[in-house]
Amino acid sequence: MSAAPLNVALIGQGNIGSGVAKILLDESERLTRRAGRPIVLRRAVVRDLEKQREVQLPEGVLCDDVQQVIDDSEIDVAVQLIGGVHPAREIMLSLLESGKNIVTANKALLCEHSDELFQRASELGRSIAFEAAVAGGIPIISALSQSMTANQIVSIEAILNGTSNYILTEMLARNASYEDVLHEAQQLGYAEADPTMDIDGTDAAQKLVILAELAFGTKVPLAAFPRQGIDSLQLADLRYADELGYKVKLLAVAKLVGDQLEMHTQPTLVRRHRPLAEVDGPQNMIALEGDVVGRTWYSGSGAGQMPTASAVVADLVDTAVGRAAITFANLDIRDREPIVVQPAEEISRRYYLRFNVEDRPHVFADIADILGRHGISLASIIQSEAPEVGETGNGEELVVPVVVMTHNTTEGKLRAADADLKKLDSLRPPNVRMPVAD
Amino acid sequence: MSAAPLNVALIGQGNIGSGVAKILLDESERLTRRAGRPIVLRRAVVRDLEKQREVQLPEGVLCDDVQQVIDDSEIDVAVQLIGGVHPAREIMLSLLESGKNIVTANKALLCEHSDELFQRASELGRSIAFEAAVAGGIPIISALSQSMTANQIVSIEAILNGTSNYILTEMLARNASYEDVLHEAQQLGYAEADPTMDIDGTDAAQKLVILAELAFGTKVPLAAFPRQGIDSLQLADLRYADELGYKVKLLAVAKLVGDQLEMHTQPTLVRRHRPLAEVDGPQNMIALEGDVVGRTWYSGSGAGQMPTASAVVADLVDTAVGRAAITFANLDIRDREPIVVQPAEEISRRYYLRFNVEDRPHVFADIADILGRHGISLASIIQSEAPEVGETGNGEELVVPVVVMTHNTTEGKLRAADADLKKLDSLRPPNVRMPVAD
Repeated sequence: MSAAPLNVALIGQGNIGSGVAKILLDESERLTRRAGRPIVLRRAVVRDLEKQREVQLPEGVLCDDVQQVIDDSEIDVAVQLIGGVHPAREIMLSLLESGKNIVTANKALLCEHSDELFQRASELGRSIAFEAAVAGGIPIISALSQSMTANQIVSIEAILNGTSNYILTEMLARNASYEDVLHEAQQLGYAEADPTMDIDGTDAAQKLVILAELAFGTKVPLAAFPRQGIDSLQLADLRYADELGYKVKLLAVAKLVGDQLEMHTQPTLVRRHRPLAEVDGPQNMIALEGDVVGRTWYSGSGAGQMPTASAVVADLVDTAVGRAAITFANLDIRDREPIVVQPAEEISRRYYLRFNVEDRPHVFADIADILGRHGISLASIIQSEAPEVGETGNGEELVVPVVVMTHNTTEGKLRAADADLKKLDSLRPPNVRMPVAD
Repeated sequence: MSAAPLNVALIGQGNIGSGVAKILLDESERLTRRAGRPIVLRRAVVRDLEKQREVQLPEGVLCDDVQQVIDDSEIDVAVQLIGGVHPAREIMLSLLESGKNIVTANKALLCEHSDELFQRASELGRSIAFEAAVAGGIPIISALSQSMTANQIVSIEAILNGTSNYILTEMLARNASYEDVLHEAQQLGYAEADPTMDIDGTDAAQKLVILAELAFGTKVPLAAFPRQGIDSLQLADLRYADELGYKVKLLAVAKLVGDQLEMHTQPTLVRRHRPLAEVDGPQNMIALEGDVVGRTWYSGSGAGQMPTASAVVADLVDTAVGRAAITFANLDIRDREPIVVQPAEEISRRYYLRFNVEDRPHVFADIADILGRHGISLASIIQSEAPEVGETGNGEELVVPVVVMTHNTTEGKLRAADADLKKLDSLRPPNVRMPVAD
């Protein structure tokens, strides 16, 4: 007796979809053994039937109308690979209503609408599996929702955007500007033609929202925590950080501080030799700390066709064997006391500050005085001798960088100090400010 | 309506058992939420009822006869925490026969008898969950049996013994001998009073057998692959390796080479800055490579009370929700084509060699000649000027170390060369030989 097949429809047949189709077609024996039943690719919905495809699909699989999937009662699971929020949300709801289980890689959609989608799926007795939505080939959803159930997670610190990490790595390694490295990354296919969501921190922040929901049972809106990307970083700051023993990483952080949740996605100084500092190139890493297990680290390819497809197919196997239904039904995100997000101005950390100052007496004393009056104490200072030409149009004026590492202070105090610093006519913008992860 | 509780018996109430009891008692609300039902500690079997306990158990939980658990039809799951093979095997079989599901941390037992135990559990419709048996707080069993189902694993390279890794780290950091560091580790409680299984490589090799069974569907006996510990390592070799840009790690490796399985647990040179080289202290790390996902890394505490208890409790939650039964039933270890283990003498790698030679002309030429005649080609040589006093009893004789890095060669060729090298009267034993992981 052989078990009934799991019939799969792929909604979207781009890069990831082609990878999933390839695995389902090429490795059907392997998957049948592991799922206890065949996993059959029955439909692949595309926009343009005529377009040349990377993977040759069996006759009759391609179609250009998602309604054919919705109406096909023999399809058990739909793999939702359409990006963005609309019409992805409406399609997912229709698929759920028609009785399909869902596997998805759409982080933007889950970030914005997991409440509604998870709720509706529960009511309908369907499951949503989303390992592929965060950190591609790294099984971090599984770690949070299954392996760490003995723990209250106390902190997540993660590198979740491979494009940003690649650019930061290359800038420092090759002493190149942000613009040059981005341009090259686009030519090599490491960065999208429109990389906005990657480099402005949105992509990493969306993934952090999903991880934080699983870890803390609280859905935090994107707008509720500080988010900055790497798009305004200068090579000079990567080099000063390096000199001080730190790497600059686009770090996504969610951690318990007392009874509040500290949360932010920002370029952050990470001390060299800490695992998060040593992740180079397009890799991702998540450091999870649980109150029982202590710290654990997970790393690998966070994006790309096959790593992401690997996660999608694992979710299909989970759906086939019934594990996805159990895991989804037991996600610890329901009926929990919501945790308040710490106001941005109260977040307490050390900071890296860089000022560009006119090279004349008493300038540094003025800065130190203002910082001191705002209760910001300084841990170390580099005043470089290398002169820079001023940016004021006065080609003759000498401007020197002053780099300061503070002791623990708050964003609120720094903002207040900034208002006073702006009045100093010896300072040349921008004043650079990056937090330090200890 | 509240679901029926999951009744748990702990067999063994030592270090790990106390940790598990503590979580079950202190975090019952958290666990009930995640398991959808209470997880109740109903029995804890100990040898000596009078012994002082770390955790105060509720009245009536402690008992000193495992038969009371076997006979109690209300107990759903037994946590098997007795170490060693006998009577652990017999107890586990009795527990299975009496209808209990099993959660265990016993790697030695699974290494030796997983065939029999898994088979019997399957026949009886019971599950065995064993996340805690390998790498404590790192969810590597879950990764292999659930998250990587799209992949054929092609290689596992791992640091699986925290005691050995701690000793290696400290030797190099403090320029101390193996004996001194071991002694101190024992005093600090980082190493057992009898650390034999840790330092001779047995513990790491047992864990590797379990991982390889999950990854390759082939049960490899301990005796079928090379196994060495750190107990014969000298500080000098850690330092030469460091000079060459490598760290020495007790590396457990299982990887596909053609249609064979290369497998070994040995002190191995790992190039600095590779993730496995940068794991310091008692931490563990597993690097998994899958044919779809590429490389992924997992690290954290591989042993210790609470990390291991965290894994045990996650398995209890999995058992409570029904995930353990599904995962166990679908382990891809049945009806697979067994993979042949590559004979030790055919394993092809680069090697680090150290010879102690009399400081006189032509000695090195003799060594190079013998190596060359056996087809072993040399990549680099360090002939240090620092003299050592010979170990022959002749206090006057000058003995100098010669360190050689070879190109790819085989253990077989090296053994053959060794036989010839032993005839050189200018060589002073031991000839040190360690493989290099590239």
